[in-house]
Amino acid sequence: MSPQSAVLESFDFQAWLRGRIQQAEDMLVQTLPGEDVVPGRLHEAMRYAVLGGGKRIRAALVYAAGEASLQSSVAAAAQQIALNHAASAVELIHAYSLVHDDLPCMDDDTLRRGRPTVHVQFDEATAMLAGDALQPLAFESLADMPIAPALVVQAIQLLAGAVGSRGMVGGQAIDCDSVGQVLSQDALQQMHRMKTGALLEASVLLGGIVAGASSTTREGLTRYAAAIGLAFQVADDILDVTADTATLGKTAGKDALENKPTYVSTLGLEGSRELLHELREEARMALLPLGPSAAPLASLADYIVGRDR
Amino acid sequence: MSPQSAVLESFDFQAWLRGRIQQAEDMLVQTLPGEDVVPGRLHEAMRYAVLGGGKRIRAALVYAAGEASLQSSVAAAAQQIALNHAASAVELIHAYSLVHDDLPCMDDDTLRRGRPTVHVQFDEATAMLAGDALQPLAFESLADMPIAPALVVQAIQLLAGAVGSRGMVGGQAIDCDSVGQVLSQDALQQMHRMKTGALLEASVLLGGIVAGASSTTREGLTRYAAAIGLAFQVADDILDVTADTATLGKTAGKDALENKPTYVSTLGLEGSRELLHELREEARMALLPLGPSAAPLASLADYIVGRDR
Repeated sequence: MSPQSAVLESFDFQAWLRGRIQQAEDMLVQTLPGEDVVPGRLHEAMRYAVLGGGKRIRAALVYAAGEASLQSSVAAAAQQIALNHAASAVELIHAYSLVHDDLPCMDDDTLRRGRPTVHVQFDEATAMLAGDALQPLAFESLADMPIAPALVVQAIQLLAGAVGSRGMVGGQAIDCDSVGQVLSQDALQQMHRMKTGALLEASVLLGGIVAGASSTTREGLTRYAAAIGLAFQVADDILDVTADTATLGKTAGKDALENKPTYVSTLGLEGSRELLHELREEARMALLPLGPSAAPLASLADYIVGRDR
Repeated sequence: MSPQSAVLESFDFQAWLRGRIQQAEDMLVQTLPGEDVVPGRLHEAMRYAVLGGGKRIRAALVYAAGEASLQSSVAAAAQQIALNHAASAVELIHAYSLVHDDLPCMDDDTLRRGRPTVHVQFDEATAMLAGDALQPLAFESLADMPIAPALVVQAIQLLAGAVGSRGMVGGQAIDCDSVGQVLSQDALQQMHRMKTGALLEASVLLGGIVAGASSTTREGLTRYAAAIGLAFQVADDILDVTADTATLGKTAGKDALENKPTYVSTLGLEGSRELLHELREEARMALLPLGPSAAPLASLADYIVGRDR
């Protein structure tokens, strides 16, 4: 058994994850305006979109990267609060992107996390506006972090770049434009790096910024983030063909039905599984210089990859 | 002739406005990714949405408030650059809000500034994504301001609050929900304060923040901004019934056709004009403590009110 495995075996990932998810949920409940605040229906839709479950992987990445980057073994109170803000911000962005992706002019999906999508439960205009309002709430959440203003500005620059036309939204646009086309593996990879990878990577790096990561640590985090960003999408594509709708909580088999390019359609199921395991190795290698405090990040890589089972 | 009128008469507002509009245009051209950057079609739609004319009143308010707030008579180079960033940010937000408002699930408008709206020229998915990507670009533009990080953070907090569910998007949601209803003047006023006023007010206050406005100046700016924010909407409602489609560059008479509550439907045309002139007086009174450097702000108030002729 390697020294790192020993550390990992003594680390109770499930308990850690439950705790961090609870922290993120508490923060989101607190950040979102209540349904008694005007306009009540919009706030209801925003809460429905954000608080309806979800695995909170992005929030977990913020906390894990933050804990791996701290100079001392315990986060200062201000850093702890700031991690809550950053975790909340990435989940708000993720929720907004799902609400807009589900709209009839995009994926036209009616089911998400086992419940009607926002435009089905409310209406299209409210769904669009709920997404439009979740986005600035995310930036406000970062702007309110009680740490050095220069770090706050860095965090906002990072998130804004990751979710704009050269990141998440750009990837979504490429995805829309590529329906019915066969993409090369390179083009597919660029699309996913933007569409899904950019926000996952930003989550990891935000944790590092808040915790004042050294440049060595930031480098490791960047390599780790790139690997798990792709792994996440590969696992998603595999799930789309191997899981059923009830397990997924969203419509299964949609990609193939819509003739969307995926890793499975490009590499096959076995090729996709091989790639997934290579990416996990890459992610774990990137964490070696960070030592035992990276245990939550290592477990998250396993968790992301493990979703294919 | 009062001393202030003397100052105003010697101030060439048209030349000032042309210069500031040009500065804002130059900054927007520079800030928006080119059509050669992937995804090209999305960037084309973003540029189409932002660079297709527009009066740039919000950008002008940023510059005017900045110039009224400077401690010395000349802006430092960094402040000048920061004003460009802030002017660009509010125009990016304004453009995104128009693109989303024009979508079929909202106002379903086909004409804007005399040209096909973005979803007509491109498609609905691209229009939604273009709006989604313009929003973070605005926050990135503020985050990149070369001034004290603490001021940058203040500016971002202000803009995020102004454009979220308790500001611009919230006002839009109330507007959607109130179609076919008769609103009280109070309810109408709250809706407009959020929908249109919040971003106009933010534009004024952003200029103040960038220029390091004193608390007295900020107070005057806040009162001025509240008055012109409302005046803008009243003038818009008057124009909707008095101007024709060619002059407006967008479909005239739409509010009445859709039975939308407006100032004209609530107060009548004459009552609306009276309110407009009261608001102008309020705006001018608020500027008195700022002295002659507020000339551009005073002229902008006249300009906004003058749109009803």
